Amino acid sequence: MTVTYTLDVATSKFSSFTRLLLRWRGSLWKAVYPELSLWLILYFVLSAVYRFALNEDQKLVFENVTYFCYKYTDFIPLTFILGFFVSLVVQRWWDMFQNIGWVDNAALYIAAYIEGTDDTTRMIRRNIVRFMVLVQAMVFRDISVPIRRRFPTMETLQAAGFMSEVERKILTDLAVPSAKYSMPIQWAMALIVDARKNGRIANDYAVHDLFDRLREYRSNLGKLTCYDWVPVPLLYTQVVFLTVRAYFLTCIMGRQYVQDSHHSDLNSPIDLYIPFLTILQFVFYIGWMKVAEALVNPMGDDDDDFEVNWLLDRNLRVGLSVVDNVANRRPPLEKDVFWA
Amino acid sequence: MTVTYTLDVATSKFSSFTRLLLRWRGSLWKAVYPELSLWLILYFVLSAVYRFALNEDQKLVFENVTYFCYKYTDFIPLTFILGFFVSLVVQRWWDMFQNIGWVDNAALYIAAYIEGTDDTTRMIRRNIVRFMVLVQAMVFRDISVPIRRRFPTMETLQAAGFMSEVERKILTDLAVPSAKYSMPIQWAMALIVDARKNGRIANDYAVHDLFDRLREYRSNLGKLTCYDWVPVPLLYTQVVFLTVRAYFLTCIMGRQYVQDSHHSDLNSPIDLYIPFLTILQFVFYIGWMKVAEALVNPMGDDDDDFEVNWLLDRNLRVGLSVVDNVANRRPPLEKDVFWA
Amino acid sequence: MTVTYTLDVATSKFSSFTRLLLRWRGSLWKAVYPELSLWLILYFVLSAVYRFALNEDQKLVFENVTYFCYKYTDFIPLTFILGFFVSLVVQRWWDMFQNIGWVDNAALYIAAYIEGTDDTTRMIRRNIVRFMVLVQAMVFRDISVPIRRRFPTMETLQAAGFMSEVERKILTDLAVPSAKYSMPIQWAMALIVDARKNGRIANDYAVHDLFDRLREYRSNLGKLTCYDWVPVPLLYTQVVFLTVRAYFLTCIMGRQYVQDSHHSDLNSPIDLYIPFLTILQFVFYIGWMKVAEALVNPMGDDDDDFEVNWLLDRNLRVGLSVVDNVANRRPPLEKDVFWA
Amino acid sequence: MTVTYTLDVATSKFSSFTRLLLRWRGSLWKAVYPELSLWLILYFVLSAVYRFALNEDQKLVFENVTYFCYKYTDFIPLTFILGFFVSLVVQRWWDMFQNIGWVDNAALYIAAYIEGTDDTTRMIRRNIVRFMVLVQAMVFRDISVPIRRRFPTMETLQAAGFMSEVERKILTDLAVPSAKYSMPIQWAMALIVDARKNGRIANDYAVHDLFDRLREYRSNLGKLTCYDWVPVPLLYTQVVFLTVRAYFLTCIMGRQYVQDSHHSDLNSPIDLYIPFLTILQFVFYIGWMKVAEALVNPMGDDDDDFEVNWLLDRNLRVGLSVVDNVANRRPPLEKDVFWA
Amino acid sequence: MTVTYTLDVATSKFSSFTRLLLRWRGSLWKAVYPELSLWLILYFVLSAVYRFALNEDQKLVFENVTYFCYKYTDFIPLTFILGFFVSLVVQRWWDMFQNIGWVDNAALYIAAYIEGTDDTTRMIRRNIVRFMVLVQAMVFRDISVPIRRRFPTMETLQAAGFMSEVERKILTDLAVPSAKYSMPIQWAMALIVDARKNGRIANDYAVHDLFDRLREYRSNLGKLTCYDWVPVPLLYTQVVFLTVRAYFLTCIMGRQYVQDSHHSDLNSPIDLYIPFLTILQFVFYIGWMKVAEALVNPMGDDDDDFEVNWLLDRNLRVGLSVVDNVANRRPPLEKDVFWA
Repeated sequence: MTVTYTLDVATSKFSSFTRLLLRWRGSLWKAVYPELSLWLILYFVLSAVYRFALNEDQKLVFENVTYFCYKYTDFIPLTFILGFFVSLVVQRWWDMFQNIGWVDNAALYIAAYIEGTDDTTRMIRRNIVRFMVLVQAMVFRDISVPIRRRFPTMETLQAAGFMSEVERKILTDLAVPSAKYSMPIQWAMALIVDARKNGRIANDYAVHDLFDRLREYRSNLGKLTCYDWVPVPLLYTQVVFLTVRAYFLTCIMGRQYVQDSHHSDLNSPIDLYIPFLTILQFVFYIGWMKVAEALVNPMGDDDDDFEVNWLLDRNLRVGLSVVDNVANRRPPLEKDVFWA
Repeated sequence: MTVTYTLDVATSKFSSFTRLLLRWRGSLWKAVYPELSLWLILYFVLSAVYRFALNEDQKLVFENVTYFCYKYTDFIPLTFILGFFVSLVVQRWWDMFQNIGWVDNAALYIAAYIEGTDDTTRMIRRNIVRFMVLVQAMVFRDISVPIRRRFPTMETLQAAGFMSEVERKILTDLAVPSAKYSMPIQWAMALIVDARKNGRIANDYAVHDLFDRLREYRSNLGKLTCYDWVPVPLLYTQVVFLTVRAYFLTCIMGRQYVQDSHHSDLNSPIDLYIPFLTILQFVFYIGWMKVAEALVNPMGDDDDDFEVNWLLDRNLRVGLSVVDNVANRRPPLEKDVFWA
Repeated sequence: MTVTYTLDVATSKFSSFTRLLLRWRGSLWKAVYPELSLWLILYFVLSAVYRFALNEDQKLVFENVTYFCYKYTDFIPLTFILGFFVSLVVQRWWDMFQNIGWVDNAALYIAAYIEGTDDTTRMIRRNIVRFMVLVQAMVFRDISVPIRRRFPTMETLQAAGFMSEVERKILTDLAVPSAKYSMPIQWAMALIVDARKNGRIANDYAVHDLFDRLREYRSNLGKLTCYDWVPVPLLYTQVVFLTVRAYFLTCIMGRQYVQDSHHSDLNSPIDLYIPFLTILQFVFYIGWMKVAEALVNPMGDDDDDFEVNWLLDRNLRVGLSVVDNVANRRPPLEKDVFWA
Repeated sequence: MTVTYTLDVATSKFSSFTRLLLRWRGSLWKAVYPELSLWLILYFVLSAVYRFALNEDQKLVFENVTYFCYKYTDFIPLTFILGFFVSLVVQRWWDMFQNIGWVDNAALYIAAYIEGTDDTTRMIRRNIVRFMVLVQAMVFRDISVPIRRRFPTMETLQAAGFMSEVERKILTDLAVPSAKYSMPIQWAMALIVDARKNGRIANDYAVHDLFDRLREYRSNLGKLTCYDWVPVPLLYTQVVFLTVRAYFLTCIMGRQYVQDSHHSDLNSPIDLYIPFLTILQFVFYIGWMKVAEALVNPMGDDDDDFEVNWLLDRNLRVGLSVVDNVANRRPPLEKDVFWA
Repeated sequence: MTVTYTLDVATSKFSSFTRLLLRWRGSLWKAVYPELSLWLILYFVLSAVYRFALNEDQKLVFENVTYFCYKYTDFIPLTFILGFFVSLVVQRWWDMFQNIGWVDNAALYIAAYIEGTDDTTRMIRRNIVRFMVLVQAMVFRDISVPIRRRFPTMETLQAAGFMSEVERKILTDLAVPSAKYSMPIQWAMALIVDARKNGRIANDYAVHDLFDRLREYRSNLGKLTCYDWVPVPLLYTQVVFLTVRAYFLTCIMGRQYVQDSHHSDLNSPIDLYIPFLTILQFVFYIGWMKVAEALVNPMGDDDDDFEVNWLLDRNLRVGLSVVDNVANRRPPLEKDVFWA
């Protein structure tokens, strides 16, 4: 689920910063703690081995390895690749969100253009909205783990009221299976054409406008599928995720406190036991990388992923509500209070 | 409120730079001084402790800690993450501003397409504009602290003239509460359909155009809500805000002036008492971060946040003015002075 | 005025580079020399004081301060913030330019759709164009210093032929002053509606097209105003402009040539008297910053600012020319030379 | 073929990271191993020469060269140029993908607007879709190696059913050969105009809508060709690909383990035989560069290139399926389960 | 001319890289060699002076200057400004390319909407296309050196068949010269209005559609002119081009091999005579800068500039071909091979 915190940062004050830090869901702490714990355990084990288990000669080897790791870790410029990669992932994430599909515009047009309070007209209006949400549900099943879990089969979609038995049969019996994502839109368009013929829609413009809304909606869902189908090249993702982790793997040795080293620039003046600043660095880099890890597939289960389940229900509920019973919810035409 | 300073920088001169620096509202100084004061107090307390309270052995420990902090702070590359993060936040801030919602285009079309000076036609025109602003007011209530403060309840919106009692009742009694953000637009569309039927609108194309304006406006407000609903991932915000502050927390120790240190590169040649250059660095980094802090929620109370209150009133006032009494404010058709 | 130099760089050759460097208007040299002179004077004064006025003890203090400044200036990473800030400013500058408003498209549509050579039709066509330019003139008065200087009052706009006396009165007497920016567009739309009624425009579709052009134009000017109203956050501008200057203020001391310093890495092998490479660095950083300073308000007086005065006159002249006397400037329909 | 791995990263967990790393197709490992092997062989040969073949004097020269290479490699800042270049290439790659051409929208409009179950109407519908895919096939032949391999001649396109013999003859006999990419679109438009004349299309607006869909599709393919015709400037590509490789060529010497060097900062404390960290660095930089290398021409044969063959077949199959036999796949109009 | 090399990089292999490097036209080698030669000559002259002409004292001065230059060159961070500048220039270059103007869409609409095989109708169709290309030719003359060279006067445009004598006279006699860029579009629009009146165009929508295509085309050319008129601010270009060259000017001294220097970090272990790694660095930085230099005016003569001459001819040829003799190039309506 999305983590909204905008009200906490309404003003830029120190207290808002503190409030921000104390959150858990979708937070840095929650993202970083598993790998940080693992890292710390490895670090302390090695530290203990050095302090208690090794003799002088072995200690010398240990110190040399530490120095080696310490010196060469800065060959890997993490910041830069992380900066560019996170930028790319954040941009894709937002693009996906903008194509996630809202029925509101279409529903408003349907309600305004397809007039009539008889049952057939209501059925037409409601069916068009339902067909739109059905496409969304089918698309989401393919790209979102939580929706797939909720609707493992087409039958479950039918059971949830997204389609009737007849409709499900038509969709599953299609000769070209991938045509099924357009089929409900096609039904909706056919309903509109019929409504125009029966005079339920007053003019040809209206048909064009309704088609435009449906096309907009369908194109959004199409783009969403494309983002899922063609992700950030695997190669790029691997380079980033691997390098950051390899860096900290090297740091387990390279940041050890060692006594009497021959290497002056490794010599830390004090033995802190706990590597405070390396932990800070860990939180910084791994936290930054986790932004990318969480957003690279925003249709998943992470705290910050889109609330697709909610959206599906909301689209159906709001869509049906907008197109239904318009007439009995209109206020009378009155003068406003500023009338002069 | 937005801080406009463009006239000060009409030309790129040294004096414009000076004028820029002397501003207080929305300025660097105002943003930085609270945390800078806190930082300086901590710095001077530690400095005093070192100079007056510690004995030689303790001083040695102090110096070692200082050296440790001094040496490892550059593990954290602030500039890069700040650069990318501020870019992201500034872009979102501007996108939000572009979707903030202006009624002007719609009002001009309403005035041009729905002709007539009788009271009913005027009511139709005025009501459509009012419905548009009403949606904006309801949306702003959800995402902006100042507007929420001004209109804590739907009743206060009614009292301010944004809606009538009947309208408020319909909106609050909706079975699907979140449909209320589309409802006034639906009323406006219904008014337009009626006006077309009564011949107040001359042709079907005008209906399409008016619907287009309403849709544009509603989509803008929808996108605005999305920006509020799905903010920059909390994780990212936390990483940035935390790292910058952790950096300067470390600097409190790491930038202390210490005498006779064993660590040659820490040795400052002169004891300045006041850490001038670290203060400059503080102003630089914290100031840069404050840009992000102020813009991450531009619907809030900061100096640089959008003037949403003003916008709401302006939209209502200008909108009503544009659609009303068009006829008696037209100049006669005359030849211009360049007529040949 | 804009500085066009594209012909100089038609090919990428060394000579084009030289030609580029020898320009003065809008150039690096013109932008940098005032502050560079100031900086050099301060530098040489301090240098002279050190060389001729100080005794040994004072020299030692001087050297220590120099070392201190030399060492800590690299705490401030100018390049990064400059890179991001200049990117932002350049992007806004170009966006503003793209919304600056051209009447050409509208004029072509007016000429094609509103046919007739009688005086009334000509007046309609010319008035619509004039109204468009009038809005631009009023908007420019608010956001551009040179235009404000040229047209300090609405009367001067009238005197320049942008509006008649009656029009000016209507605009200044409006109950809601900020509605005046839409008013001339509203007049233009009313003229179009009238022309349709009188049959001067042949079909409803043309009305829609003409409205579209007007809306496009008005929206552009609206966006332009927004860029002026909501500039780059003051805070950001201050951080950048201040840091760059503070850096070079520190360099006045930090780059002094000092003899026999105790600080080996400060020791310059030769006394060049003139700090060549620091000057180069100054030109580089201040020049880069000047790009931002000049573009942050492109409606001002800088060499590189948009030629708004020219644009206003050009829009009026070209617009009126396009819509006028269309008929007598058409070539006869002939076969082209490639006819087969 | 595109490598889809989004399901693997549904949640940000350590196990997803491991699964990511274990892939082979389109992976870092597959991209990096050939050049890494080559590099390692050269490295070990030189290392063996140094250890076993050289006498003391020769060793000294070897050590000097090593030191020279070690010291100067950091003159070349790879990260920055790679960051910007990969950003550019990734953006172009995504833009190309967005213009790759889907027939779905057009097919839906054709099915809705051109009604009738007689053979002629079906032929019209099917031919329009086929003409669209034909253009795509011809464009892909020019810019994609796999498609060119599959369809080396126009005859093979005919054999695959994309066009008839007559059509092929017309296309190959055109006086202006490059007009052939528009020709099938022109046929489709002519079919639509005919259908409107025969009353198969009910109104003029539908013609406009259908033309819009065709134009959209054709413009996409046009843009795609432009991306192929005007690639990233060769110069830029060369700079990046050359520099990265020159860097590692230098590293073959510069990262050798040498004993008793006079150059203290070269001295590695331990002889690891295998240059672990340089290998990591190699994987990092070459991997990053391979992202650009694979995406710079996404119509090729790489693992991550677009599946153009599949797309072509899919467009034909889905397109024909959508426009055909609409009538007998429509569900009856029924009340939905939420009906109240 | 554009250098297309996409087929060479169809797969990411080492051999493709080699093929890429061996090209000459538009290549790094061609771009870099003149300045590199110059630089090397200066370098060797100085080197020879040092080795053979100077006595010991002079050598000491030489060494000091070398050390000074060596030490301070890293004050100038080339990478960053180059990264941002090249990004900006590449983006503008691509935007220009996207607005370069193709007649295809317009021609297809003209062919479909303006029906008839009589000479007058053909003349109308051909003239509209010709008028479009004429505008392009006039615009290109102003912004492109090769086109200006090919068409130095309006008479040469007439001679090449882009316009008739009458047309040229009208254009050159215009009271407002800059209106001439809209005039041919205006003629085209008038032809369309006439064709609608004579029934050659069947409905008002078609007029709107045709106007849309013309407007799109004209707006593209307008934007292209804007890119030429308002280039990247001169200041910015100067900063970048100057700094890179100043850097390498300093390197001529700073990278000299000097014996027995007092400055340990300058000491190179071996005398290579040829500064291999500085040459690599030169190729890297100057090559990167040349990307910007070549693209900053893509309408010029560089290898990588747009092929405007070819485009002009192609637009005329393809445009005329598309609109002409449509009827006799249509295939009969047949069943496709997938018909079931």
